[in-house]
Amino acid sequence: MLETKLIADTLPMAVTWEDGDLFLLDQTQLPLATVIEKQETAEQVWESIRLLKVRGAPAIGVAGAYGLCVAMKGDTDLPLSDFIEKMDKQAAYLDSSRPTAVNLGWGLRRMVRTAKAAQVSTAAELYNVLVAEAIAIHEEDKRLCIGMGENGAPLIKEGMGILTHCNAGSLATSILGTATAPMYMAHNQGVKFRVYADETRPLLQGARLTSWELQQAGIDVTLITDNMAAHIMSQGLIDMVITGTDRVAANGDVANKIGTMGVAILAKHFGIPFYVACPSSTIDHDTPSGEGIPIEEREDYEVTEFGARRTAPEGIKVRNPAFDVTPNELVTGLITEKQIITAPYTENIKALFG
Amino acid sequence: MLETKLIADTLPMAVTWEDGDLFLLDQTQLPLATVIEKQETAEQVWESIRLLKVRGAPAIGVAGAYGLCVAMKGDTDLPLSDFIEKMDKQAAYLDSSRPTAVNLGWGLRRMVRTAKAAQVSTAAELYNVLVAEAIAIHEEDKRLCIGMGENGAPLIKEGMGILTHCNAGSLATSILGTATAPMYMAHNQGVKFRVYADETRPLLQGARLTSWELQQAGIDVTLITDNMAAHIMSQGLIDMVITGTDRVAANGDVANKIGTMGVAILAKHFGIPFYVACPSSTIDHDTPSGEGIPIEEREDYEVTEFGARRTAPEGIKVRNPAFDVTPNELVTGLITEKQIITAPYTENIKALFG
Repeated sequence: MLETKLIADTLPMAVTWEDGDLFLLDQTQLPLATVIEKQETAEQVWESIRLLKVRGAPAIGVAGAYGLCVAMKGDTDLPLSDFIEKMDKQAAYLDSSRPTAVNLGWGLRRMVRTAKAAQVSTAAELYNVLVAEAIAIHEEDKRLCIGMGENGAPLIKEGMGILTHCNAGSLATSILGTATAPMYMAHNQGVKFRVYADETRPLLQGARLTSWELQQAGIDVTLITDNMAAHIMSQGLIDMVITGTDRVAANGDVANKIGTMGVAILAKHFGIPFYVACPSSTIDHDTPSGEGIPIEEREDYEVTEFGARRTAPEGIKVRNPAFDVTPNELVTGLITEKQIITAPYTENIKALFG
Repeated sequence: MLETKLIADTLPMAVTWEDGDLFLLDQTQLPLATVIEKQETAEQVWESIRLLKVRGAPAIGVAGAYGLCVAMKGDTDLPLSDFIEKMDKQAAYLDSSRPTAVNLGWGLRRMVRTAKAAQVSTAAELYNVLVAEAIAIHEEDKRLCIGMGENGAPLIKEGMGILTHCNAGSLATSILGTATAPMYMAHNQGVKFRVYADETRPLLQGARLTSWELQQAGIDVTLITDNMAAHIMSQGLIDMVITGTDRVAANGDVANKIGTMGVAILAKHFGIPFYVACPSSTIDHDTPSGEGIPIEEREDYEVTEFGARRTAPEGIKVRNPAFDVTPNELVTGLITEKQIITAPYTENIKALFG
């Protein structure tokens, strides 16, 4: 764990729990300002999640769990039954901050379930149970990221160029990120390599977040627009692609940020390995293939505006799919916390996790 | 020519010469405002070119030629030799507005050469020669565009989806554009089809210009970010790609706006024909292949900022190649004003134009 400690010293943390207090890095101000906000009330945590100050499925799950601790901290003098009643309400309230964030509800339900199963006689004791469970959720997420990092780092060789898309970085998780975990591990081992970060339109997670966190960690990172990837690959500058994923189907099809499939096709064209970092919790065994994954279509203004400035004609038709599905035949390997899974995916996923 | 007249009625013109006056559409205000500015002085034309109010190689060439007329209009009372002396100076002055625009210098040199060869005895007569030559340059460019449109339109069938990248539209030429010429022709013939316009980062020519001019013409156009092209293709929505080009090598390799090669690779992956509209003047017979085409690398701020708003970390490394080179094997055909050229390109280009 020394390695992880070293990396953590240079990496900004999205979520921190220190001396009984929750701190969140306000990611909406990145990369212009690094503002870490102490969370004093349930309302503040609700707003932090709502306004995307904390984002990324794993980080939201951890923030929500700690958020329930923040919400209940001042109520340890209540009778136990009143404490439990309020806890239920606060968990439901926090869960309402981002209804589509699966990890948020999952984490909060786990907190409440654990609390209700605990053998305690006072609210103060139950509060300690909540804190311990939130820390456990946090530590579990860290272990997933460290596992992906350890399994993926050996792929990164001295002098390599690595392309990544969107932000599957430490900012989206407890530590190290998913796609970036192998990079941080290899960097910490002294391996020198270059990263190219796609800016990732429309929301620019690559420009705003990935390039920032890699730069903070001292990794050699270059920002490009999404449509430069082919040219950069054609120049021989990319030896490997690593992206994250939102959901992996049972056959290894990968749903991830819009543009991922395009990168995978370019990688195949140029004979470049294409890896996806993927905690086992992201594999959806109930979805046989990518065809079953619904693609969220988001609002037009993300494409037609930039900040408050309109850049497209009024009334123009827009498509804005938030994700695409990369077919498994374009995926060289899934970097999980257990091992790297390769084709045939259906069989190998089932053998490892089924 | 009736067809062209009909289209011209619905299409905003980048450059117009009317009753002895030059009018330029201020493209920097698109798509938010349609402002057409009468050009009163050489200084105003210089600034219009400098500030990219008029852009696109052919349009700049035509604007520069008319600009010389604007510059000399008030001097028809001068002695002929004084008029010629001033004409030389004004041509050099106008040419300095955009030193890298090849068509600008070409058009101005042609104007001066024609004027000096003319058999006239007064400045007023010479001024008329200048106007006639500018109109000739304008008409020649129109004929090129119409030729590409006539040759390309039969490729467009009812119900097709067409993807285009950047702006190779009427705004960049005298009329109809290059990549868009077949679209305008087919539309005018009553063929119904859909166009998907890549927004084209970093300068968003697709969002600002292509989507606007197609919308103005009543063509069904949908704006997407560059990284959505693969997903849209995978949904079966694209039957053909047509782009423009800045320069075609003698072997058919195509230099065009950054991102074009990526689109060509995606098209190949999905089995979609990839066409390039290309006036014969764009074929560079002295450049054997794309390797000989230098790629302009532009300034970082285009990638790290949007408008005046910074979106990437301070000090971040950036690549910003303005063009890429699509290898000829990815090109289904070159739509020229003479005919559609297909592989083998070296032989067929030589046979047609050599």
